[in-house]
Amino acid sequence: MQQPDLATALIAGDRRALARAITLVESTRPDHRAAALAVLEAAARAGRQALRIGLSGTPGVGKSTFIESFGLMLVNQGLRVAVLAVDPSSARSGGSILGDKTRMDRLSREPAAFIRPSPSQAHLGGVARRTREAISLCEAAGFDVVLIETVGVGQSETLVAEMADLFILLLAPAGGDELQGVKRGIMEMADLILVNKADGDLKPAALRTVSDYAGALRLLRKRPQDPEGFPKALPVSALAEDGLAQAWAEMQALAQWRRDRGHFAAHRAEQARQWFEAEVREGLLARLTRDPAVRARLGALGDAVAAGRAAPAQAAAEMLASLGG
Amino acid sequence: MQQPDLATALIAGDRRALARAITLVESTRPDHRAAALAVLEAAARAGRQALRIGLSGTPGVGKSTFIESFGLMLVNQGLRVAVLAVDPSSARSGGSILGDKTRMDRLSREPAAFIRPSPSQAHLGGVARRTREAISLCEAAGFDVVLIETVGVGQSETLVAEMADLFILLLAPAGGDELQGVKRGIMEMADLILVNKADGDLKPAALRTVSDYAGALRLLRKRPQDPEGFPKALPVSALAEDGLAQAWAEMQALAQWRRDRGHFAAHRAEQARQWFEAEVREGLLARLTRDPAVRARLGALGDAVAAGRAAPAQAAAEMLASLGG
Repeated sequence: MQQPDLATALIAGDRRALARAITLVESTRPDHRAAALAVLEAAARAGRQALRIGLSGTPGVGKSTFIESFGLMLVNQGLRVAVLAVDPSSARSGGSILGDKTRMDRLSREPAAFIRPSPSQAHLGGVARRTREAISLCEAAGFDVVLIETVGVGQSETLVAEMADLFILLLAPAGGDELQGVKRGIMEMADLILVNKADGDLKPAALRTVSDYAGALRLLRKRPQDPEGFPKALPVSALAEDGLAQAWAEMQALAQWRRDRGHFAAHRAEQARQWFEAEVREGLLARLTRDPAVRARLGALGDAVAAGRAAPAQAAAEMLASLGG
Repeated sequence: MQQPDLATALIAGDRRALARAITLVESTRPDHRAAALAVLEAAARAGRQALRIGLSGTPGVGKSTFIESFGLMLVNQGLRVAVLAVDPSSARSGGSILGDKTRMDRLSREPAAFIRPSPSQAHLGGVARRTREAISLCEAAGFDVVLIETVGVGQSETLVAEMADLFILLLAPAGGDELQGVKRGIMEMADLILVNKADGDLKPAALRTVSDYAGALRLLRKRPQDPEGFPKALPVSALAEDGLAQAWAEMQALAQWRRDRGHFAAHRAEQARQWFEAEVREGLLARLTRDPAVRARLGALGDAVAAGRAAPAQAAAEMLASLGG
């Protein structure tokens, strides 16, 4: 398919076109990159906006079950839902294409849903760029909600929080009154803490955990982009499909409050600027690896430094001079 | 002082010349940078090597007291000791020049000692570069041991471990059998764990903590650069000046073992290569902020992106094209 056709099919909402466009932006081939830029430009011109929900939860909290139940509820309300995964660790395992679709079996069979696993990129910067671009493509394809999920490891949570409109932390009921070692920084990013598995035997523990987190959240400084009462902690049961409607109502209320007061648009504008600047930085650094002659020079100077024949700072100055500017 | 004179005085072991040379490499002025490169090149030609010891310990473990006692012991053995601090958080507090000298009062008055606080740099990359260069300058000035100390926050420990020959973790006695929440990654970087305050009332707790860590260390995979029995946990008392000689003997034994087997030189070669590559990356990125015209263009394109008049990826491509290459 030619790029104009791909963009047209994408904007018409075709899921196969969306999948192909994401594959295109994931490619590192220079000719693919030019085509990807054209599709992204067409996507931006479509001027569509989805609600971007970042969702973090460590393995074992029931994240897949939650996304499946929550996604199906939205689909049943007539909404189109895209799910993107951000998992830098999947670079090692080579991704989990089958895994992602298998673990959200019912949702993946819905025509109004689109599920895309994490790309197998070697570094977080690559995953970040691809995810930001995939979000734009999902929005252009007419999806109403884009769920960006991540496991709670390293910096991927910050990355997801930065590219989302709302950031949700999914937790399991805690034993006793411990706060599960959730880092303060992560709590400060959360708009909503959902304690899953509030069903059966675990329900009392889940409710107690909600109350512990509600207390901890009250100690945080109120943020200007939050109405009274936010960030909030709520119990949900993805398995029993309980509490999901209330969680969704809270997300919508928060988003609407921010839209009405301009925080939503201001946040998006700042995100776009940061995305642009990150892209420029990554593009500059890519010059070190793209051209074989540059790569060879970097290697040779590195060898000289390692062998003690040149001082690192001096060799770096020489390398930079050879790159012009 | 002209740069050739500065380099000559530095290599003659003059501490004031060393302090001025470090100030020079910390400067961000382009003309200072050229002079700094000349001094670094002269320093590298001196071909001297110190033992670089990285030391991490959170506030409260008695790090300053340890450095003072340990440093004085080395000075009394006829060694020259430099202490460099790496504390990215000091960027906010504006450094702690007085603080560092005050808290190591006796050591700072020794002619064979040199103490330098953390620079007030805005980002970890800047602190990293300055510290690597300051290490080289201390080596050229004939110091035998360079202690690079850091508080255990964020990535500063990894940074210090990467630029040191040996990495020491200083801990306080723990209550009960808890392992003080020391992250596995930090433990894996440590060559030696020293449990401080093994004196008075705390001695039994310190010995128990040593034994807990010794057990935990035995569970780690043996590293090729380690002889049998390493990494080790030992009790010390900086206050009672107890155990310091044994700790120093262990450090020397480990360094000698690695020297004999080539691990030491291989590690240094790899460090130098990484330093060079980091320097090249930072130099490339600095082009975005150095030239006012480039900075203005980046700002204008960022504004266009924030206002929704341009797609981030497209604007980034335009910016990169304007930077050539």
